[in-house]
Amino acid sequence: MNRFFIALFFLTLLAIAGSRAQTASIQRIDPTNWWVGMKNQNLQLMVYGPQAGAMTYTINYPGVKLIKTHKAENPDFAFLDVVISPTAKPGTFRVTGKNGSQTVSRPYELKPRTTGPKGQGVSAADFIYLIMPDRFANGDPSNDAFPDMLDPKADRSVPHLRHGGDLQGIANHLDYLQDLGVTAVWMTPVLVNDESLKQEAPDRMQAGYHGYHFTDHYQIDKRFGGSEGYRKFAQTLHQRGLKLVQDAVYNHVSDDHWLYKHQPFKDWFNQWPGYTGSSHKEQALYDPYASAADRKLLLDGWFTPFLPDLNLRNPFLATYLIQHAIWCTELFSLDAWRVDTYKYNDLNFLNRCNQALMTEFPRIHIFGESWVGSPVAQAFFVKNKIDQPFKSNQPGGLDFVLYDATHAALREEFGWDTGVNRFYQALTTDGLYADPQKLVTFLENHDTDRFLSVIGEDLEKYKMGVTWLLTTRGIPSWYYGTEVLMKNTKNPSDAEVRRDFPGGFPGDKEDKFTVAGRNKRENEAFDFVKKLANYRKTTPTLQTGKLMQYVPQLGTYVYFRYDNAKTVMVATNSTHQEIELDTKRFAERMTGFTKARNVLTDETIDNLSFVKLPARTAVVLELSK
Amino acid sequence: MNRFFIALFFLTLLAIAGSRAQTASIQRIDPTNWWVGMKNQNLQLMVYGPQAGAMTYTINYPGVKLIKTHKAENPDFAFLDVVISPTAKPGTFRVTGKNGSQTVSRPYELKPRTTGPKGQGVSAADFIYLIMPDRFANGDPSNDAFPDMLDPKADRSVPHLRHGGDLQGIANHLDYLQDLGVTAVWMTPVLVNDESLKQEAPDRMQAGYHGYHFTDHYQIDKRFGGSEGYRKFAQTLHQRGLKLVQDAVYNHVSDDHWLYKHQPFKDWFNQWPGYTGSSHKEQALYDPYASAADRKLLLDGWFTPFLPDLNLRNPFLATYLIQHAIWCTELFSLDAWRVDTYKYNDLNFLNRCNQALMTEFPRIHIFGESWVGSPVAQAFFVKNKIDQPFKSNQPGGLDFVLYDATHAALREEFGWDTGVNRFYQALTTDGLYADPQKLVTFLENHDTDRFLSVIGEDLEKYKMGVTWLLTTRGIPSWYYGTEVLMKNTKNPSDAEVRRDFPGGFPGDKEDKFTVAGRNKRENEAFDFVKKLANYRKTTPTLQTGKLMQYVPQLGTYVYFRYDNAKTVMVATNSTHQEIELDTKRFAERMTGFTKARNVLTDETIDNLSFVKLPARTAVVLELSK
Repeated sequence: MNRFFIALFFLTLLAIAGSRAQTASIQRIDPTNWWVGMKNQNLQLMVYGPQAGAMTYTINYPGVKLIKTHKAENPDFAFLDVVISPTAKPGTFRVTGKNGSQTVSRPYELKPRTTGPKGQGVSAADFIYLIMPDRFANGDPSNDAFPDMLDPKADRSVPHLRHGGDLQGIANHLDYLQDLGVTAVWMTPVLVNDESLKQEAPDRMQAGYHGYHFTDHYQIDKRFGGSEGYRKFAQTLHQRGLKLVQDAVYNHVSDDHWLYKHQPFKDWFNQWPGYTGSSHKEQALYDPYASAADRKLLLDGWFTPFLPDLNLRNPFLATYLIQHAIWCTELFSLDAWRVDTYKYNDLNFLNRCNQALMTEFPRIHIFGESWVGSPVAQAFFVKNKIDQPFKSNQPGGLDFVLYDATHAALREEFGWDTGVNRFYQALTTDGLYADPQKLVTFLENHDTDRFLSVIGEDLEKYKMGVTWLLTTRGIPSWYYGTEVLMKNTKNPSDAEVRRDFPGGFPGDKEDKFTVAGRNKRENEAFDFVKKLANYRKTTPTLQTGKLMQYVPQLGTYVYFRYDNAKTVMVATNSTHQEIELDTKRFAERMTGFTKARNVLTDETIDNLSFVKLPARTAVVLELSK
Repeated sequence: MNRFFIALFFLTLLAIAGSRAQTASIQRIDPTNWWVGMKNQNLQLMVYGPQAGAMTYTINYPGVKLIKTHKAENPDFAFLDVVISPTAKPGTFRVTGKNGSQTVSRPYELKPRTTGPKGQGVSAADFIYLIMPDRFANGDPSNDAFPDMLDPKADRSVPHLRHGGDLQGIANHLDYLQDLGVTAVWMTPVLVNDESLKQEAPDRMQAGYHGYHFTDHYQIDKRFGGSEGYRKFAQTLHQRGLKLVQDAVYNHVSDDHWLYKHQPFKDWFNQWPGYTGSSHKEQALYDPYASAADRKLLLDGWFTPFLPDLNLRNPFLATYLIQHAIWCTELFSLDAWRVDTYKYNDLNFLNRCNQALMTEFPRIHIFGESWVGSPVAQAFFVKNKIDQPFKSNQPGGLDFVLYDATHAALREEFGWDTGVNRFYQALTTDGLYADPQKLVTFLENHDTDRFLSVIGEDLEKYKMGVTWLLTTRGIPSWYYGTEVLMKNTKNPSDAEVRRDFPGGFPGDKEDKFTVAGRNKRENEAFDFVKKLANYRKTTPTLQTGKLMQYVPQLGTYVYFRYDNAKTVMVATNSTHQEIELDTKRFAERMTGFTKARNVLTDETIDNLSFVKLPARTAVVLELSK
């Protein structure tokens, strides 16, 4: 915390002291509502308002019992432990507080459980499309900017300001996504980021357009469509058979978050004598020789000076965040969670939070972003097969190991452990994970250079990478625009890889959502992804089939997906010459098959003794007798 | 097997057929003797001689029972299962074979158990010195060459021929080794390599001077001093408190091995339609997606065309090799085994062999050479904490992961995960191993470029590397000559890193075994190693103490070894500027200490708030109150 924040903190305390003379009132209760019939009958209400902490509370409603009231260090907060019995009926009760002669109250609604699909999870049968809502499509120009918000404008001419994209924009293009083969939508966060512009670099004032700077957990940003818009968006997705993934951030909030301005406890945030950034060195968590100091620096260090680091060891905060996750899942009928900056969070909190979600929604999937460089680190943050003092219960995770390997495989020439050996070798360590099929694979995301630029804008490499992504194990995910060859690196800034989808915004000269709007090369890319994503979608063998891979030889890399129904051979020739691949080595998987269909070209192959592999091509063959 | 070997095989069969008319006789029995009082009462005798397989055997000796006789496919072999009861007394019995009217017999000795130190193991309290006996010192010029051997000469002028070094040469320099701080001697194999020169490269006929081409398991090479010389050498070591490590090779033998020329079973060796080298890709063993074909290629492929690959799944061969390991340990009073080419051996064989040794010699240590590039692979080949289908029981292993990391740490400048971060990061994965203290660490060996050449002949880097080796966890090992700055790369061949130790051979102009024979720089290196090795030797904290390491910052890397008795701080400054290191971060380990002694310079430090770290230096401080 730098001096500015220290000053802010004390000003806040002064403001709180000044408010003591005020009349007590209840200004909000979080969660803003709850449901009857949840598996966990316990609920902790955060009551906020002047002198909220000085009151004695009662709740009078059949099946609802107020067990205990906790005072916070900040007198404007109280925490009420409530038990909701299975017999409680939907309805509204009043939370009543008394302070001497004064009595105040506020209604609180217990809703019936949300109906319809919910908590469905995502699996290797899905194809997740990641969208930054501000940058994909503007379906409602009336919600682009609001004068009552700390950042009151949208300006597409500036890369680091808001551009006006919204949920309606995405909803308008669901045909496009489904045509591509997408089955699930993951958006960067939609929770409100009502914050002032931040000096993210000496020459750059930046808006929270990406959504990761929460300012209130219980509001969806109205610039995206607000809570009601989000609920309807989820319904629309589900009606189309699409799933919804929400992006969680447990590690930090914006310094404009109302709970940073009004902190219930002195330890709500991790405090340091001066601004202290995280070490980003996750090794300190699993290193058997680590110091407590290094673990603290990783976990409690701040992500940036504008993102106060939440102290997840505070039990009231932990419950607050866990209940919020459940609230979102139930209210918006979420199917899965992606968890931002996973490795920076208190490990026990993460396990508690994951478990709470899995208890209420047994089929839900959770995949965190642990941006690490080794399978040992990656395994640490998910359910794994290593006997270590800490055992994560996270079912999935973003597969940064395979991401790194894919890029290296495409960028390097073949060698002893280079080129396609990278991809092969990354998968050989899958025995560390409890279930590698639950890892979410990707070629790029909103925090990385765009895939096309990484591989030198080479369409042959692009197709090889896409083919691996869509035929190997795991849950494939996709960053918006890659299918129409959006490119760029993070130089000079992140905004370069978060450009507007051409055609998504009023006045756009080009419309890459349509065949006519895409050029030949873009259509070639789009059609390639579409063909393979839809093949995967209709081919259970690629979703749940076993994988067998062979040690790469002479620049070729061959693997099979197989089950009782089908055998699919994926053979990559990473060299610059055509190869006639002798298939003798693969007898274990090919014996009995005599013919094949090339899934990408629809050609038929009548002799499988040798398979022709064009240079720099991954061939996908469905084998038959 | 190439055509030559196929031809040889059939010629052998013809010779065998021709011998059928011969009178049966017993020419040898392996093991060549055994002992009473072994924990395992079972013994399998391999009986060899014309028509040995056609005979019916009897043994008549109190406490010894012949349980079963097995015929081999080759009629010249029989395998006799014998049980030696705990009541059996030392003595000699006769193994008697009858074939019709013919009776032959051969004496077989059961000795009393060898007395004196044996199977002591090596631990992190040791400092192992690796010697290639042919290249270290020639103590007995009378045994340099023998006209009755397939390679009848020694010639120091040719890098790839024998040079004449021997066990007596090593024995003559044990004062030198003990002065340096050495506590254990590991030699490249001393089993006889009675083989012809091999065409190892188009321009190179090479002798088996390194010892890895066994031709008879039950003979020690007489050019090194023979079996009796080896037994006495072991005694000499033990009398001085030194330990003996033997180098095992289970994967292959020379094509001049008598059991390659006379194969008991057709599957004694792994056979291929044409010469087939190993893939060297150990991933196929732990990859959950591996094919059986790739596992077979790794394990059954040959190491070179001159090294027939043993089929360790043949139960008679497995027993033959396991009994040989126990025979050597008992007869030569070995303390530990290093296992060559560990990753190429059948996994079940390795576990059986390790277990058999550990059963007879509970304190023995075994450390295999699994030359791999990742901690996941390295962990697979030792006792580990990963829940995998195959669990190795190997207590130790050569630490190639830390070897790679040490080199990278010294060669790279400091960066996000480069420079000293490499060393730090390698250790953070130690949670995969059951006991990382049992890994054998090293800077180089007889198969690698020499350390000094790898680090650009930079004495500052040399000292940093040596300091890490001798103060971090694990069992440090050392390759002969590094202490006197022997250098070279493997270009043009391995022989460059296996040069004669200067002063070890008659007529040598220089004698680096003596202070006077070493130049200033060589003495500086020698004295540095000597000081630190002897400090480790007398400082249990460096042997058994805990390790705590800190995330490297700004090119510094700090760790502590500590126990109730002592705390030793090792602080490396890898940068090119002197640094005043603020020690606040290290409070967890430094609180209570006010002073320190610099172990390398003997300087006293009176204020520990800041520690001065000269550029490119690792400082070793013993802290005190």
